[in-house]
Amino acid sequence: MDVLKTRILREGRDLGRGILKVDSFVNHQVDPVLMHACGQEFALRFKDLGITRVLTAEISGIGPAIMAALALQVPVVYARKHKPVTMPEMVFLTTAPSHTKGTEVSLMVSPEYLAGGERVLIVDDFLASGATILGLIRLARAAGAQVVAVGTLIEKSFEGGRAALGEVLGPEVPIESLAIISEMSEKGIVFADESYDRQR
Amino acid sequence: MDVLKTRILREGRDLGRGILKVDSFVNHQVDPVLMHACGQEFALRFKDLGITRVLTAEISGIGPAIMAALALQVPVVYARKHKPVTMPEMVFLTTAPSHTKGTEVSLMVSPEYLAGGERVLIVDDFLASGATILGLIRLARAAGAQVVAVGTLIEKSFEGGRAALGEVLGPEVPIESLAIISEMSEKGIVFADESYDRQR
Repeated sequence: MDVLKTRILREGRDLGRGILKVDSFVNHQVDPVLMHACGQEFALRFKDLGITRVLTAEISGIGPAIMAALALQVPVVYARKHKPVTMPEMVFLTTAPSHTKGTEVSLMVSPEYLAGGERVLIVDDFLASGATILGLIRLARAAGAQVVAVGTLIEKSFEGGRAALGEVLGPEVPIESLAIISEMSEKGIVFADESYDRQR
Repeated sequence: MDVLKTRILREGRDLGRGILKVDSFVNHQVDPVLMHACGQEFALRFKDLGITRVLTAEISGIGPAIMAALALQVPVVYARKHKPVTMPEMVFLTTAPSHTKGTEVSLMVSPEYLAGGERVLIVDDFLASGATILGLIRLARAAGAQVVAVGTLIEKSFEGGRAALGEVLGPEVPIESLAIISEMSEKGIVFADESYDRQR
């Protein structure tokens, strides 16, 4: 998706150790017009899958996920990392290693909002190692729901997340990233060839 | 805003001690179509204020804030509660008591995304005691920005937040809530008269 790639080249900053800072349009400040366009792109790519619900993880998945859900006209559920007082006593919980924190974080979903029979699209800001998304897949499956697609804004293909997800999801479930970065170095950010988007 | 009030009456649950659970459309599962409509309503009510930025607090403010920002076509910044590695060493930080957690939480904004001269709309899901929004006002003012309006989805008028904000903001800054609850008891949820929305 060119508009996203252009923005990454213009404002993204490589902080080293594979960390890409996109705080000016995704992670701290959010460009709602760009997120809206990304949501529409997800809806277009996944339009024939009969999606009934979008699932993401708080915090930075919420922006792209709510816009995908708006375009698909379905509810979005965000997995919580801390249990608020409004959550029931019995929830689905899994843990996932945090890329940027160096610790395990909890991901919790109430069975009230994720149930058997749902056809779930998982959306997140980044696909790196895939750890968070693997956690969301476990939550969806624990609820008896089916993950029918995965969409992320930015994939770092050199971190192997796509293969890890593919192993768990099988070859039929599409994984789409709107910008795929194949290399980050002093020389700059290199995107994978456009054709890679479709190659699976 | 009738569509929001209807939803609160249908799905909201009074958990006691002033806690209203709206996890099925605002706080855990989000209805993106409803949030989009709420965003448009905020944009309509505040259209003449020259807003340049929307400010909210993670996590549950993000949904309504991103939709208000979309309607206003301006960026949205969400104050972080934990400092990610992508944040610079020097940030604006304040603390605010958490209604549902019984502790103080940090609210941080990077000076990269909030600066002098900005005309800020603060958006949040709830206006209760006003503590979180007061924290956001302190952050905006520390950055030299001007808070020109406050918009919330649901106000619990019996918790006094409106008066607390009014004292700090002065009478010229509009505070608009799309649903104002004047009473929550065994007898049910009672909304303040519609005219209250406009009465200040």
